[in-house]
Amino acid sequence: MVLEIPKGYRFGTYAGGLRYQGRDDLTLILSDTPAAAAGVFTRNRFQAAPVLVAQDIVRGGSVRAVLVNSGQANACTGDMGIAACRECMRIAAEELGIREAEILPASTGVIGEHLPMERMHRVLPRLADRVGKCSPEQAARAITTTDKFPKLSAAGADLSAGRVRVLGLAKGAGMICPDMATMLGFILCDAQVEPGVWQEILGRAVDKSFNAISVDGDTSTNDCVLALANGAGGTRAEKQDIDRLAEAVLQVCQELSYQIVQDAEGGTKVVHIKVSGAADGRQAEAAARAVGNSPLVKTALYGNDPNWGRIVAALGRSGADFDPRQVRVFLGGYCIFENGCPAEGDIDALFARFLRGSDVYIGLELGRGAGEYALKASDLTHEYVSINAEYRT
Amino acid sequence: MVLEIPKGYRFGTYAGGLRYQGRDDLTLILSDTPAAAAGVFTRNRFQAAPVLVAQDIVRGGSVRAVLVNSGQANACTGDMGIAACRECMRIAAEELGIREAEILPASTGVIGEHLPMERMHRVLPRLADRVGKCSPEQAARAITTTDKFPKLSAAGADLSAGRVRVLGLAKGAGMICPDMATMLGFILCDAQVEPGVWQEILGRAVDKSFNAISVDGDTSTNDCVLALANGAGGTRAEKQDIDRLAEAVLQVCQELSYQIVQDAEGGTKVVHIKVSGAADGRQAEAAARAVGNSPLVKTALYGNDPNWGRIVAALGRSGADFDPRQVRVFLGGYCIFENGCPAEGDIDALFARFLRGSDVYIGLELGRGAGEYALKASDLTHEYVSINAEYRT
Repeated sequence: MVLEIPKGYRFGTYAGGLRYQGRDDLTLILSDTPAAAAGVFTRNRFQAAPVLVAQDIVRGGSVRAVLVNSGQANACTGDMGIAACRECMRIAAEELGIREAEILPASTGVIGEHLPMERMHRVLPRLADRVGKCSPEQAARAITTTDKFPKLSAAGADLSAGRVRVLGLAKGAGMICPDMATMLGFILCDAQVEPGVWQEILGRAVDKSFNAISVDGDTSTNDCVLALANGAGGTRAEKQDIDRLAEAVLQVCQELSYQIVQDAEGGTKVVHIKVSGAADGRQAEAAARAVGNSPLVKTALYGNDPNWGRIVAALGRSGADFDPRQVRVFLGGYCIFENGCPAEGDIDALFARFLRGSDVYIGLELGRGAGEYALKASDLTHEYVSINAEYRT
Repeated sequence: MVLEIPKGYRFGTYAGGLRYQGRDDLTLILSDTPAAAAGVFTRNRFQAAPVLVAQDIVRGGSVRAVLVNSGQANACTGDMGIAACRECMRIAAEELGIREAEILPASTGVIGEHLPMERMHRVLPRLADRVGKCSPEQAARAITTTDKFPKLSAAGADLSAGRVRVLGLAKGAGMICPDMATMLGFILCDAQVEPGVWQEILGRAVDKSFNAISVDGDTSTNDCVLALANGAGGTRAEKQDIDRLAEAVLQVCQELSYQIVQDAEGGTKVVHIKVSGAADGRQAEAAARAVGNSPLVKTALYGNDPNWGRIVAALGRSGADFDPRQVRVFLGGYCIFENGCPAEGDIDALFARFLRGSDVYIGLELGRGAGEYALKASDLTHEYVSINAEYRT
């Protein structure tokens, strides 16, 4: 994969030995110039220390670096966790010759353990030494926990004054991993963008990508997506360029979120659920989530079973408003349910083979209005239960 | 088990061969006298034909009989399904010498198949012949689908004018079975009660029992609880008796709902989740359901893992309002999380043995108000995935 890398970013990774042996688990991303910062954070009431701190930093509008550790989430660690997070930022800032308030922190890993600060004092300077010597691929690998593969995506956009580049890195293999916490996303861009505009572009992209996937319906204490736009490409995003830039950011976020569902714990399929004809967008989302989160639908898909009864039952309890007789259910583009009854013919025989693919398409047309929503979900498998029942004990 | 049977009810079961071979699958419960009728029905938008019809009948206030078939849900069967349901009621009414509008219908089984009406014409008269020759245990067995054991419970109450008896029968082994649809409950009482009062007693009891359990968070198209009070015991429930009668009905419903969770598909444990200190009852319920429905919590419990991080993370995304530092989490009465941090000591070692029991108690004290909620949930196991992935294909 040859990626078009945005200008003015340097990467460093290092094996800090926080939890995993024999692999890098610390990452620094440094922008040569101050970058507009944007962030979208977990709405979980138990926000991890780095989430609380990063929210503060993003409000400042401009940053130079992102510091990530995997293996320890620094979540449910109280005031000590906040102090530890800030101390790591201070050490890195000193090494890089920037201000502490210019570093965005992120952590992912086990909840409830404290960062080993003695070790951090020893390894963070070495991490700083590596900046500029590592590739984005190495960074994408160093931020993973239980992921089976690193997640990277890139896109370019031709703005009025020239081309800009967007690169994305993400980790995640469950909306919440075993007791690993969880999805992180980093979006790097070399356009020059107003912080307010950049935040809006990120927020809209995340809604249609990372917020539109479901592995198990859980939300972690550490989820966040951080975005930097440093202007190092020399191209300013003018008002008429915003849509084009937003399109590139959305593309990167959607590719990364697809990769997360692909890598879902124990998952064998990516299930694309498209709801249309709902009264409004919220109801379309409720319908899509009820189907995508249903353990019965997810196990049926794992079993390659075209079980429209479960899809219909999940839809029926979603809270979305519709007339049951107006609903049509599609599998791979074919209508399998309408007028309140299953379609004629042997659905099982028709679709069993089709369901064996790695991507499955479910369409729900509610016949009620113009509301739409698209969700990507994983299936529910024996391996999911094994991973999550046997991870700690 | 010796049950105190309410007076004036007779039971009949018959092997109609609808789906299961070698066992009874048709049930008639006949009251000697007209009984006050009450019902609580699934809120799923796709209501099965018998649910739609029974709602009508309950509105009439008084019934003589309940007619149940297992194996076919008569759900998603359109107008033909309604006609089939009414035709079955007509045949049974004729045989019993009562009016069609005095029969409450209920079905449970596969969604989307039509009742075999030719067969029903042949077998329903034979079912009617059996009325008075069968026990409540036989009836409880005949209404099951994938249940591993029949579910029965009884209680008595001493009212001002004498003793009355309450008997309950239920089926269910998942909020929705494979593609079997799903929980049914029948409550029989020999007190004389006003229909409006009886409906209120049932509604309140169901809220605290059948509506307070979760196997997989799904809700079927056929769920219903029907209750008859026929006055055959000769005792009228006066105003001052209502609480005592309601207590007996609640006890029966709670025992049956416990049995349903015990019999949950693939389940190895009953998890009792008690939330207290929430801002109000609704928030307490939201918190309990987020924890009880979380696949991560459910798999951890299956793995005997005292994974407080997952409990806390599920609570944090529940939407309930609280200060994370005020929250206390209890396992089996011991506090394992407070002040935003895990309790001191080796939680894993302390609780691993405790979690191996068949009943697990989780307490969540939110420190915010007086809202409470109690939920019973099952764990999530390999067998659940096997049953639901492999059931049809």
